[in-house]
Amino acid sequence: MLDSINIDSQVPVYEQIENQVIFAVAGSDLKSGDQLPSVRELSERLALNPNTIAKAYRDLEVMEIVYTRRGMGVYIAPGAESKCRAKTRKHLVGRIYEVVCEAKAAGMSDSEFKKLSSTAFSEQGTLYGPLPQNLEKESRAKK
Amino acid sequence: MLDSINIDSQVPVYEQIENQVIFAVAGSDLKSGDQLPSVRELSERLALNPNTIAKAYRDLEVMEIVYTRRGMGVYIAPGAESKCRAKTRKHLVGRIYEVVCEAKAAGMSDSEFKKLSSTAFSEQGTLYGPLPQNLEKESRAKK
Repeated sequence: MLDSINIDSQVPVYEQIENQVIFAVAGSDLKSGDQLPSVRELSERLALNPNTIAKAYRDLEVMEIVYTRRGMGVYIAPGAESKCRAKTRKHLVGRIYEVVCEAKAAGMSDSEFKKLSSTAFSEQGTLYGPLPQNLEKESRAKK
Repeated sequence: MLDSINIDSQVPVYEQIENQVIFAVAGSDLKSGDQLPSVRELSERLALNPNTIAKAYRDLEVMEIVYTRRGMGVYIAPGAESKCRAKTRKHLVGRIYEVVCEAKAAGMSDSEFKKLSSTAFSEQGTLYGPLPQNLEKESRAKK
């Protein structure tokens, strides 16, 4: 979590950071009271401008998913779990629908879509990380 | 095709227009020599600034997917099909992988993902159109 950013993604960078936190809380990898890395630490780790991290943290604070303890750091807020699960569900259903519509418009069959998503599911890749090799191959396949 | 735009999508509006053309060519709904609506006609139909349409058409021309006949209009270029199929494949594999990673990070199971994508596949919705009612319901479901 918070280990990589994909600058080629259509998802803006600050939103990738927000999503990684929201998804981790929804998936129980982060719990209320857990501390997030400091803005400086994360900006060094991801090689990003500290302002980008600060923007993401500020958004998460407005959403009441994190809170700041002055001089201490940024923590996951109490009750964040149900909020993140609801947000995530809405986000995922919308994105799944969009990508399925794109696949249909491009003439991809339901079974081909299922095959590709199963391959993607079986990969150990990180969110917003690089495309795994066998999907890289699939992306060049002539169909 | 080119009937709707989703302003809530993470995909920029001009890119939604480009994608609709590219996907339609890849899926054989548009063929070399077919004419696209004029900038003015499309800007009225989609209630968008003509500059947004012009930007999309210019990009498609740079990609050699369309060409302009002065005083006549914009047409799908010869050989656009294989270019669009390759582009679409690469785009779709990347997006499927990204949304699957998001689903995994949020703790969604492979079978739940398949169920939602099958529901999406069975819908008659248009690309970048509104979320169909039974997916709207799914997006509010408590999981």
